[in-house]
This record gives sequence, C-alpha cells and structure tokens, in this order.
Amino acid sequence: MSAPNAFYAQSGGVTAVINATACGLLEAARKQPDKIGKVFAGENGIIGALNEALIDTSLESDEAIAALRETPGGAFGSCRYKLKSIEENEQEYRRLIEVFKAHNIRYFFYNGGGDSQDTAYKISQSAGKLGYPLVCIGIPKTVDNDLPFTDSCPGFGSVAKYVAISAREAALDVISMSASSTKVFVLEVMGRHAGWIAAAGGLADTGHSDAPQVILFPEIEFNERLFLEKIEGNIGKYGYCTVVASEGIRFADGKFVAESGRKDAFGHSQLGGVAPALVKMINEGAGHKCHWAVSDYLQRSARHIASAVDVEQAYQLGEKAVELALQGENAVMPTIVRQSDSPYRWSIGSASLADVANIEKTMPENFISEDGFSITDACRRYLLPLIQGESYPSYYEGLPTYIRLGNRLVEKKLERYRPS
Amino acid sequence: MSAPNAFYAQSGGVTAVINATACGLLEAARKQPDKIGKVFAGENGIIGALNEALIDTSLESDEAIAALRETPGGAFGSCRYKLKSIEENEQEYRRLIEVFKAHNIRYFFYNGGGDSQDTAYKISQSAGKLGYPLVCIGIPKTVDNDLPFTDSCPGFGSVAKYVAISAREAALDVISMSASSTKVFVLEVMGRHAGWIAAAGGLADTGHSDAPQVILFPEIEFNERLFLEKIEGNIGKYGYCTVVASEGIRFADGKFVAESGRKDAFGHSQLGGVAPALVKMINEGAGHKCHWAVSDYLQRSARHIASAVDVEQAYQLGEKAVELALQGENAVMPTIVRQSDSPYRWSIGSASLADVANIEKTMPENFISEDGFSITDACRRYLLPLIQGESYPSYYEGLPTYIRLGNRLVEKKLERYRPS
Repeated sequence: MSAPNAFYAQSGGVTAVINATACGLLEAARKQPDKIGKVFAGENGIIGALNEALIDTSLESDEAIAALRETPGGAFGSCRYKLKSIEENEQEYRRLIEVFKAHNIRYFFYNGGGDSQDTAYKISQSAGKLGYPLVCIGIPKTVDNDLPFTDSCPGFGSVAKYVAISAREAALDVISMSASSTKVFVLEVMGRHAGWIAAAGGLADTGHSDAPQVILFPEIEFNERLFLEKIEGNIGKYGYCTVVASEGIRFADGKFVAESGRKDAFGHSQLGGVAPALVKMINEGAGHKCHWAVSDYLQRSARHIASAVDVEQAYQLGEKAVELALQGENAVMPTIVRQSDSPYRWSIGSASLADVANIEKTMPENFISEDGFSITDACRRYLLPLIQGESYPSYYEGLPTYIRLGNRLVEKKLERYRPS
Repeated sequence: MSAPNAFYAQSGGVTAVINATACGLLEAARKQPDKIGKVFAGENGIIGALNEALIDTSLESDEAIAALRETPGGAFGSCRYKLKSIEENEQEYRRLIEVFKAHNIRYFFYNGGGDSQDTAYKISQSAGKLGYPLVCIGIPKTVDNDLPFTDSCPGFGSVAKYVAISAREAALDVISMSASSTKVFVLEVMGRHAGWIAAAGGLADTGHSDAPQVILFPEIEFNERLFLEKIEGNIGKYGYCTVVASEGIRFADGKFVAESGRKDAFGHSQLGGVAPALVKMINEGAGHKCHWAVSDYLQRSARHIASAVDVEQAYQLGEKAVELALQGENAVMPTIVRQSDSPYRWSIGSASLADVANIEKTMPENFISEDGFSITDACRRYLLPLIQGESYPSYYEGLPTYIRLGNRLVEKKLERYRPS
C-alpha cells in the first residue's frame, strides 16, 4: 500500500516568503517517501480542494522546488475565501473530505493568516465529525504580524526590512530636497488593524532624526490637529518631516482616514489611500510641498531585499509542519519562539489551532511612545532581530530569476462540485 | 601660490547614484592636489553658492568620500532653483562670480538634469562676459533619462532596475491573488514627459505575459476606452492584468491624467496620482478589484538595488568631469557613448553645453509597440544593458550603512547676499 498523500495550500494575501515555507514543507516531505506519498497543492488555495484542482508537486524537479525559496508571490495561487461554520455549510466540508478521500489525502497543511488558521481548525473538526482520519496543520503567514502565540509571522520580517530601508532611503532624498522644494514625505504601508509594519519604519531612524519623525499607528486614534502640529514642529526643527502611515488609521469616530470621503490632494475622489489624504490635510494647512508613496503590493512581494531571518524562519516552519504531522499532532500550528533579543535566538514551538483561530495580536502599549508618534526602545528590541541579513535571490540579465512552476493538475476522480 | 579651488553642486531631483558621481569627482580631484586645491560643495546646490554656504569637502575622510558611492540622496543638499537669463538677472551672476573669486574657485561642476545643464551653460557665459576665468562642466544626472547626446543618464539605470524588479514581483503577487481577489495592479512611476521609466517596467516580462501587460507612456495620448478594453482583454486571456503607468500621461486635450495644480520652482506641474485615477476608471467600468502603488521617491532613492552599470557610469562621469576641467575644456558635459548592445560596451565622450541645454529627449517611436501599450525589441535591447549587475551597499544590523557627511561650511568672506 502506498503512503498517504498530503494537501498543501496557500491562503490570503501572499508574501515574499510564503514560497519559502512551501519549499521547506515540500523538501521535508520528499525526504519521507515511505510516510508521505505525493504532496498535492491546492490550485488557488482551498478553492483548489473544493474544485478538485490539485497540483501534482511531484512533477516538479528538486531544483524547481529549491527555487521556491527565493521566489515571492504564491506559487500555487492563493485565495480569499473563508469557509462558513460546519453548521452553516456542512456540504462544503463534506466535499473537501470527499476530495481528500478520493486522493488518499491524510495530511492537510494550510498556510495563511488568522482566517486561514480558523479554516484549518474547522476542517480538522469536521473531519473528526465525519470520521475521516485527517491530520490538520496550520502554518503561519502574514505580513500583518497579527497572529497570536507566535513571536513573529513569516512575511513580516521582510516587509519590515523593506519599509525600514525604503523609509531611510526616501528620507535621504527629502533631506536633499527640503531647502527649496519638498518638505514632507508620506509613506503609506500595510498592516490593517495592527501597527507592526508602520512600526518597522521606525527602524530607519539612525539617531539623527533622519526618519521617520512621525509614525501613524492604527492603534492610536488619528487626530488631525496633533498630526499637523507634529509636522510643523519637525519642519521647524529639521527643515523636513517624513511620515510612515498605516493604511488602517482611523479618526475618533472610528472612520478610516482612507475612507474619509475626502477628495485627495489632486481633486480625485478618495479611492482608499491614506497617504494622499494626509497630504491633502498638510496642503490645506501650511501648504508645504509634499511627496507621497503607497507601496502596496511592492512591500509584500519585495523578495529582492527579503530578511534572511524571515526566509529561514518561513522555511523551517514548513519543515516543522511536516514533522508535526508525522508525529500525529493534529490541529496545531508551528510557531516562532523567541529565546533572546540580543543575540537573537529562536526555536520552533507549536500552538493549538483552537486557541489561535481568529485572535488578532495588535502592538503592545509599551511599543508605542507616549505621544503616539514613534516606537519605543522595547519595540526596537523586538523588531530589529527580524530584519537581520539580506537573502538575495539569484539574478539573470539584471533581474531576479524567480521560478514559475508547471502546476500540472492531477486527473479528477469526482464529479464537478456544484454547491446547492 | 596654492592651486585654485573647485565648486561642485547637486541640482534638481536626486537619484540613487548622484553621490557616486560626487564620489568619482572628489576622488579624482584628491589625486590632483597640485592642480585642484579644495573642492567646495554648494550647500543645497547653486543656492549654496549664492549664499556663500560652501561645504569644505576636504574635511571629510577618504573613507567617508568612498562611502558616497553607495549612499542615495544628495549628500550636500540639492535644490530646485533656476537662474534667469543674464539679461534678466545679471545681479545673480555677478554674485556667483564674486563668491567664486573670494574663494579662488576656478572650476565649476554642476550635477543635474536639463535645467541644470542650462544653468551651467549660463554661468559659463556670464563668467566669460564678466572676464572671470572659470571652467564650467555640467555632469548629467536624471532618472527621467531625457538628456540629449548621452546614451543614458546616471540615475536612470537604477530606477529602471527598481521598476522592472518591482513590476515582476508585484505581478507574481497579483497572479497568486487573481482567482478570487485582485485582478488588476497599477504601478505609477516617474518620468515626467519621457516614458523611459515606464518602459523599463516592460523588462519585467519573462515572455509568459507575466507583467506588465499594459504600459502607459506620456508619449502616447491616453485614451480611456482603449485602456479599459486592453485591461478587459488581458483579464479575459490571463485572469489578471498589470499596468505600469507614467505620471506624465495626458488626455487628448493635453490635460494630465493626474494634474495636481501645483507647480514647482521651474514652473513644471507637480505630478503624482495617476494610479488612483486609473483605478477609479477601472472601478467605474467592470468593477474588478484593483490594487495600486505609487513608488514616488522610493524608486529614485532605492540604492539597495541599484544597477551596477549605473553606479559605475555615475562614478566615471564624475571622474571624467575633473579630467575635462583640467584639460581646460569649458562648457561641456561628459556623456555615455554606447559602442554595442550585446555585449554592452560603452565609453565616455563629451557634448557642448550650448547644444545640451533645455533639450528633452523622449522615447524614439520605434521603442513603443504599434498599439502603444508595450515596448519593442529595439527598446528592450537599449534598456537591458542599463540594469545589469547588483551594486549592493554595506549593511549593519539589517540596514544599509548610508553615510551622512559632516558638511562643515567654509568661513564666509563676503556680505550676506541681498537680492534687490
């Protein structure tokens, strides 16, 4: 009898290192052919399982799998799709189990953020309920760094590094220009309800008040008056001011600044874009010349400047997922455990999916300065280890040699899924 | 009698490699102490000369000067300030010559784009008119790549590399997400009236129609209907579409798609905000989920992924400027001369400032595809050599160790400048 197969899928927003996790998992699985037959990857995440669109990763060479370690994006396709509760949509869970059964899949690996850990947990529950032996492992991934129980989340360290470097570089630009031109630069970053990515901008500060002098965290209520005062104060003191703003900042009434209904600095209707909204406020005030950037997908796909620590952790979490599964651990998520800040030491532990699901970890209060506009030393001690090392990809003709896999699908054995 | 001194200033928007030019110039000058005494750098460009704010670069160590090679921004401060014609403002030219005379400055090096070459030319003319022996050398610099007579402009190759890499990385992200989420990604890039930077996005294409499927050039009249058709066509064919849009695109009536209404010191419109404007059009049409990024200053300060070719050319142009000056060449600009595309071979030549001043080099017609949305093979052959090699800066604790110079000013000898 051949060894049972495994299913792996990528979920939610992708990162610069989610494929490093896939790499770690696939390489670990290939080392255990007596225990794991094939690893099937979901085409576009869990949707691939529902549609029986299973990518046969065994058709990829070892070299191609190894190249995943340095390729951003989600190599098998990701999805934004949240399963309902088993009570609400049992049909969907039945379908998943049916697909797994048809392809002798006994291991389920789901690589994502909070929603995905929730999905992995629900699937483990429903498999138990339906009497199908399935080992479910969630693997953390999110640039937002908002998963509980893990010291950090793969993907975050690389965005943090990108944002810190970008903030430092842009600051040098603004400093050069400020005497006769641009006085304010605003960099908008991701992070949703958690200020982790914005906080990483604070690492750019070299102690010369280079940048950013102002960080806007979603954890802190946005106050336009205080913000403009802070800008003026810095222009008065340094001649310029740079700002790193989280996309998720809100006014006192809970409304997102990016959804404020304002027109942006250029008279266009606001499309979601904190940076232009902030620049509009500054323009209406003192009228300083501003520049703004929205890094959006660039920040989370910037594999060219990924953190070596992040890449290694992402890889090892993939490996560990296989180890946990083969130990028969079910409904768990491997985690990063920090042992010390300096020197940075870490190991891999695990947490129960029942505990992880749907908890959002925001910044601790003592990571944000009293005035709410910068990070504390405690925050710096936490963040700095996560951006260490430059994991450069290979290049060919001036561009990174990111891999595109063949992604050939396994022959279907079931009827097409037609949700009723 | 001590050797005469030199003046060097940075002008206009800075780049990832303008300091590499400063490094080449300063290192070359230090090798000729019998011919060039000190090099004074203008604090904030030509404004520093008017205000007699002269930075004594001789106070910087050789190590500090060497570190300029890998530091973005303008180490001495830049400016957006355009001298009027000699007829209109002779006073200003008299003041400059007075400052040069007071500090025994006989060499004038001005590092900038088209406006700056014009300034350098005017100063050489006025020095002649006022009978002051001054050798004036313009040194090219502009991410817009729009200077004539030089095959490419220092600063451009690094932006081109950044944009090509970013477009490739973001495309991998969009491809991952497109099945159930984001279908369109728009990256806004600089370039003003010349589509060179947008064109560089085309290098990201690996031949799998990865990205970008649509490039918007300022040389091509923007047609909303054709644009939306193109987006739909690509989504139909590939499931997603990525766009690289130049900030300078205009409608048929000549209006910028993203006109801010502000003008800079040169009277140019301040651009920015094309990406959200385009996304608005797409949303109002088919309503696909879109993401957009505006890289703004990040693209031109991204020294962390600078093109090695660009860094080397920027450096050598600085060196060459000194050589030309010592040969007594006046009112010239060193240029990049391409000898062959593949293998890429280049040398340094020179052009007369009288010819260079205020000419803007836009993309040749045969570099843009017939439908106006992509680059041709000829364009690819031109661009590809410019992004070769990765010139990585040094890192400390996860961040590039960019230098901040002391920038100590020389004691003033003249009265404060009070323009009447």
